[in-house]
Amino acid sequence: MHRKDLVKPDGRKLFLYSREPIADSIQATNPPHDPVTGRSHLRWHPLRGEWVAYASHRQNRTFLPPKEYSPLAVTKSADFPTELPAGKYDIAVFENLFPSLSLNAAEAPLPQVPTEVEPGLGVCEVVVFSQDPETSLSTMSLDEVTLVLKVLADRTRELGSKNEIKYVLPFENRGVEVGVTLHHPHGQIYSYPLVPPLPARMIETQRAHFLREGRGLLEDFIKGEEEDGRRLIVQKGSALSFIPVCARYPYETWIAPKRAAPYLYDLSESELRDLASVLKTTLMKYDGLWKKPFPYLLALFQAPTDGTPTEGLHLHFQTFPPLRTSDKLKYLAGTELAGGFFINDALPEEKARELREVPV
Amino acid sequence: MHRKDLVKPDGRKLFLYSREPIADSIQATNPPHDPVTGRSHLRWHPLRGEWVAYASHRQNRTFLPPKEYSPLAVTKSADFPTELPAGKYDIAVFENLFPSLSLNAAEAPLPQVPTEVEPGLGVCEVVVFSQDPETSLSTMSLDEVTLVLKVLADRTRELGSKNEIKYVLPFENRGVEVGVTLHHPHGQIYSYPLVPPLPARMIETQRAHFLREGRGLLEDFIKGEEEDGRRLIVQKGSALSFIPVCARYPYETWIAPKRAAPYLYDLSESELRDLASVLKTTLMKYDGLWKKPFPYLLALFQAPTDGTPTEGLHLHFQTFPPLRTSDKLKYLAGTELAGGFFINDALPEEKARELREVPV
Repeated sequence: MHRKDLVKPDGRKLFLYSREPIADSIQATNPPHDPVTGRSHLRWHPLRGEWVAYASHRQNRTFLPPKEYSPLAVTKSADFPTELPAGKYDIAVFENLFPSLSLNAAEAPLPQVPTEVEPGLGVCEVVVFSQDPETSLSTMSLDEVTLVLKVLADRTRELGSKNEIKYVLPFENRGVEVGVTLHHPHGQIYSYPLVPPLPARMIETQRAHFLREGRGLLEDFIKGEEEDGRRLIVQKGSALSFIPVCARYPYETWIAPKRAAPYLYDLSESELRDLASVLKTTLMKYDGLWKKPFPYLLALFQAPTDGTPTEGLHLHFQTFPPLRTSDKLKYLAGTELAGGFFINDALPEEKARELREVPV
Repeated sequence: MHRKDLVKPDGRKLFLYSREPIADSIQATNPPHDPVTGRSHLRWHPLRGEWVAYASHRQNRTFLPPKEYSPLAVTKSADFPTELPAGKYDIAVFENLFPSLSLNAAEAPLPQVPTEVEPGLGVCEVVVFSQDPETSLSTMSLDEVTLVLKVLADRTRELGSKNEIKYVLPFENRGVEVGVTLHHPHGQIYSYPLVPPLPARMIETQRAHFLREGRGLLEDFIKGEEEDGRRLIVQKGSALSFIPVCARYPYETWIAPKRAAPYLYDLSESELRDLASVLKTTLMKYDGLWKKPFPYLLALFQAPTDGTPTEGLHLHFQTFPPLRTSDKLKYLAGTELAGGFFINDALPEEKARELREVPV
């Protein structure tokens, strides 16, 4: 994998990744824009015991622009620069123009309010998976999807090495159903100044299991899924996907290496390739299910980067698909949002059979 | 308040509430329906450390029926019975035809799966606020809204007194944006066999604060909001509403008595009336903001009914409004759903000013 580090005219960082060497002649670009002022800050929510971020400079951000104005398309003419320079490379990563968190947030004054306040430190990156606006992780080649995982591994290592960053969360929002504003295939990486509540919870349960049992919680869970077999979707060498026995969404899947590796960069070349293959094939089944692009949130959970012990922590993807049938949303309402208690109207065993039977 | 207990022909309980005595001649009704078979069960989610409910019998439930078939309308003809009998009363409460949780769930066999399983015990009730299909909590009279609170207090006491029930959660989903299937004004009450994760978290923080400070967390929080003043919306005697300094949604409001009462039934007649007045006026401001019915999830958080100490626990309503502008949803995506870390693109101080300035 080759990487080239550039700086956009507006000062944001740009990283190009490619399977081939990248020409020195490539110049970073950015769309014309008004200066982005305003910094985020965090406020303590004493009743939930968690931080909330305020990013009011994001109110007027890009929202579903027509195709001809996509800022994620490759620059075609110097008169109309986009976020992606022209030239030969596979994947582009750059800092979000409207970041929810940024490392220069410390420069801004903090509001005087009756709760604890902190600057909204962090990094928000955009990961453009391909120069092709019509492709997706399900239709890209296995080599290309493997490269996406290598890029996420590289970003995790680099972002996680910063003192301010305690957790790196790569994710992809796909489909208007989950609020996607730009349809060019891309993901995002949020890097936080703290371990966010849900990863923190999953780290806590895995650590407790490891200290009690001497084995990884998710390793034991995966053994249970393999022995049962009814919820398995795809298996390939060292990796597999399944609808977990405790799925909260009808078509929720977990995509994981079978062994407990804390970070993507801990996986070998062949383990990465197995994981990419299972990811790609699972997403192909999603798209084949109703013969249309399947909307989802796809998140990659890894170990924190705050220096705490990582034994027993097991990287994996989880999907959060918003549809329960081809045309019905699973709304999050009273019991889910106010109770935090999920009701799933579908049995994981039945939904897994549906997905298994989709030909790919 | 008068109450009449009835049993529907299909066996479900019906409770009528009224400010006037209720005629003995009223007979319970229900719409014709196929037998509802299938029971819910709970599965343990070891990675999140929480229970998830499976209610696959709910897959084919009513979904946005045309107005003429509303099961929540009052029965007009014996040939077309609905959930509401004809007759004079204000509010009807009945067991949901498609309950996510039910007290006879213990009768059903539990699935053999590789995680802990329990029957889906609980009670799911529907609360029809009025016989008028076009009204809402914002347009009903203060007397009528006060009666709604008295009914919720009565339901909390009765449901919470059952051995199986550890937490009672009344809520209203309003608007197609939050997935409402029936537009007749109504709420729901979920009664759980456990304290759900988010109430559990808020109880934990309040108890810790009380044991440390000897005062209620929310009492202290409200004092801070009153002294600051910028986020207050409505004040009336013993109750107030405000956008909390740590709001996660742009138009999130909390509506509360100023003193820490654990349950609605702990409030005096005049405290209940103040709370009803603040609730009604806050919802009027919502509807006035964009001159259209404002969609929201409205949840009432009270103390648990599992016998644990309640000192310092402070009942209050929270709203979860899905819109960030009159036509833009605040989507819950990567950081919110996968991280549990909320980014609010609006400042609570600005949104509170908007709501304060709406004439009512």
